[in-house]
Amino acid sequence: MIVKLLNYTPNPDRTCAAAAFTSWKKLSPKEIFENLTDEEAFKFLRKVISYGHLSVTEHAYFTFSIEGISRACSHELVRHRLASYTQQSQRYVKFNAGELKYVKPKTIEGSEFNREYDELMLKIAEFYERMLAKIPAEDARYILPNAVSTNIVVTMNARELNHFFNLRLCNRAQWEIREVARRMLEEVRKVAPILFENAGPSCDRLGYCPEGELSCGRRPVKSKALRNL
Amino acid sequence: MIVKLLNYTPNPDRTCAAAAFTSWKKLSPKEIFENLTDEEAFKFLRKVISYGHLSVTEHAYFTFSIEGISRACSHELVRHRLASYTQQSQRYVKFNAGELKYVKPKTIEGSEFNREYDELMLKIAEFYERMLAKIPAEDARYILPNAVSTNIVVTMNARELNHFFNLRLCNRAQWEIREVARRMLEEVRKVAPILFENAGPSCDRLGYCPEGELSCGRRPVKSKALRNL
Amino acid sequence: MIVKLLNYTPNPDRTCAAAAFTSWKKLSPKEIFENLTDEEAFKFLRKVISYGHLSVTEHAYFTFSIEGISRACSHELVRHRLASYTQQSQRYVKFNAGELKYVKPKTIEGSEFNREYDELMLKIAEFYERMLAKIPAEDARYILPNAVSTNIVVTMNARELNHFFNLRLCNRAQWEIREVARRMLEEVRKVAPILFENAGPSCDRLGYCPEGELSCGRRPVKSKALRNL
Amino acid sequence: MIVKLLNYTPNPDRTCAAAAFTSWKKLSPKEIFENLTDEEAFKFLRKVISYGHLSVTEHAYFTFSIEGISRACSHELVRHRLASYTQQSQRYVKFNAGELKYVKPKTIEGSEFNREYDELMLKIAEFYERMLAKIPAEDARYILPNAVSTNIVVTMNARELNHFFNLRLCNRAQWEIREVARRMLEEVRKVAPILFENAGPSCDRLGYCPEGELSCGRRPVKSKALRNL
Repeated sequence: MIVKLLNYTPNPDRTCAAAAFTSWKKLSPKEIFENLTDEEAFKFLRKVISYGHLSVTEHAYFTFSIEGISRACSHELVRHRLASYTQQSQRYVKFNAGELKYVKPKTIEGSEFNREYDELMLKIAEFYERMLAKIPAEDARYILPNAVSTNIVVTMNARELNHFFNLRLCNRAQWEIREVARRMLEEVRKVAPILFENAGPSCDRLGYCPEGELSCGRRPVKSKALRNL
Repeated sequence: MIVKLLNYTPNPDRTCAAAAFTSWKKLSPKEIFENLTDEEAFKFLRKVISYGHLSVTEHAYFTFSIEGISRACSHELVRHRLASYTQQSQRYVKFNAGELKYVKPKTIEGSEFNREYDELMLKIAEFYERMLAKIPAEDARYILPNAVSTNIVVTMNARELNHFFNLRLCNRAQWEIREVARRMLEEVRKVAPILFENAGPSCDRLGYCPEGELSCGRRPVKSKALRNL
Repeated sequence: MIVKLLNYTPNPDRTCAAAAFTSWKKLSPKEIFENLTDEEAFKFLRKVISYGHLSVTEHAYFTFSIEGISRACSHELVRHRLASYTQQSQRYVKFNAGELKYVKPKTIEGSEFNREYDELMLKIAEFYERMLAKIPAEDARYILPNAVSTNIVVTMNARELNHFFNLRLCNRAQWEIREVARRMLEEVRKVAPILFENAGPSCDRLGYCPEGELSCGRRPVKSKALRNL
Repeated sequence: MIVKLLNYTPNPDRTCAAAAFTSWKKLSPKEIFENLTDEEAFKFLRKVISYGHLSVTEHAYFTFSIEGISRACSHELVRHRLASYTQQSQRYVKFNAGELKYVKPKTIEGSEFNREYDELMLKIAEFYERMLAKIPAEDARYILPNAVSTNIVVTMNARELNHFFNLRLCNRAQWEIREVARRMLEEVRKVAPILFENAGPSCDRLGYCPEGELSCGRRPVKSKALRNL
């Protein structure tokens, strides 16, 4: 997979800090934005985020080019509704058997099923290509597996991204979307270090694991983490 | 597929009418709701809807049990973000080869590919079942096609439903989601006749087709429909 | 103020439990909904909620009639965007001076300003009534204070309601919206005891106060509550 | 009022065009974004917008600094829920009587009520300042009128902005928010000429007025505009 930041609100940390100060100041947002020192901006932004006043982090938007993930993964991704998506369409884009790329989980690659997986994928791709000659693409695609590769444009703000990271960097998230999340975070941290300073799985934010008996053990569960629950 | 209304806000037409009157009246919403005659309620609701003041139609919610649609279809469905979904998980639910149901488009059923489609599905299902013995379900599912059957709970309000019908009852929508939409409309019309009185494809609402050269011809395109554009 | 549950999805706990089971079961949502015992339903719903898997709680909706709150309060209320609102309009509804009701904070009622507050309100109401004779209501309303009473219909699902309670039952929330939240919770607990079993301020959910130095002290702050931060 | 574009997704037209092409192309979004000519981009973007396929226009975000509008106006503004807001707080920011600015509708300015409006505002401001000495700001503000001036940061994407313009550039919208919308459009047209090429009231988009008997007459109503309804 290739995950690249395609575009974003310039000065994301400063933009959100200026919004935060707007609540508390007589100055206009524009005056605040232009006159704030970086030090003031980052200190105040850190503070409001630490209190959980996250709405100010909605003013910075990030658009990603995501290439070569499986449809299994994109299906999980688009379930995050506070975001915008445009995905390569299996109704509009037709592939011949040679072009049809797919994702192979490592658990399969390292198993006795590796060769059969590839052979079956090829068989499916060939059947798909043959059907395309007579059947509309929107119907021929019914035979295509979850593994088939797709491209997607994703736009989310910093608040939703941090929420996305909470859920999808968790060890209980599926490995492919966890890898997408890891790469998205790598990209946004370069341009918005304060907004994503503490980005990570829920347990990093909460201080304990909320998953109860399903916990991976990375942090203690709530009942063990809290002194006097 | 089976599409059933599982649950809904009781008295949906009256609820939305009472909300509409709340803007215009000194009485409380509760007083309005309890004292409105059906005639007044329906007349006023029709009027505000005809003006495009649709926000009042958000106060009526509808929850559907949808069973036996393809994953291709559910993937289109969940792209409507102003709604809530809970879907049968391919990470949590495991099927043996005999249980694995799938959808077959009519274009394939009536074609030379019919038998090969079924045979390939069976081959995939058997491979999937064998992998399940050693590979986590979340990875084994990569081989499963878009055609595989799923169940999903969907909750939408009347405003979003009408928008959903505008898009998905259009002849250019894919046949399977068009059928889902048709059945959902059949269900909600029984319990909310006013809210869904004019439900249909966009061209019914607009009076012309917005799809330009892609139009199915059901109604004239904008440039031909309007007298003095 | 008067806060009444106007309408809601019947069987809210069971509806959300059936959705939760849909992820894990081969049965359709409708079969699950109809065959689940209350005991199974409530046990499983409690469990998924405790893990923070809250999306299933979006399938139960609640519509409130709220009467006689100030515009200061309604302005805070409508900032919760994952909800639907229809509010009495100051553009459409005209009041004469005698009809114009307003909210008086207890801090003012018990102070030396009490009488002056009432006198000024009356002066404003009289000026407003006089302007209405010659000025459009949408402009005359510019003189009306935040204190002026309004009615509003609010529809939220159980997930958003619990989030709303987290924020608005906090001692740092303003007293009027805290009272609205308290009454809304009282209403929904009667009909959905499991969904709102643990409803309360954020600190109840988290086990510590997230507000840092602004904390009311009801629970220890994060750094003191966690054993090994 | 002062309305300034504070920040935005760079290359908004190109960003949305690249997203649109992603549905139809084998290339990744990044490759498309980097290799598209302006001519191709703008031509295709115009086309998908004309068909009403508006979701691609969600990938461009715009953040505004809005200064000196009334609370009446900001209350209307924040009702648009698919957007992010951070507003100057009357709980946190205290004004003395001399600082407290307010908006005066032209209908009042040109009327016999002009002087009384100013005098009453001053009286209210003085009472407010006196209360502040002993009453919390969050309660003292109950006396402040809708007219009182506020600042707000607003972030919306191009899709929501066009919808906002449809509603708020309509002659039936209140004059103050219409002026806000007019200035916002002036700002965004400079940087995203294609995305906002046809921005305007609903009647411009539809080709007729949807407001029925409430119509301002700018365009004919639906029943008169359509040839063969």
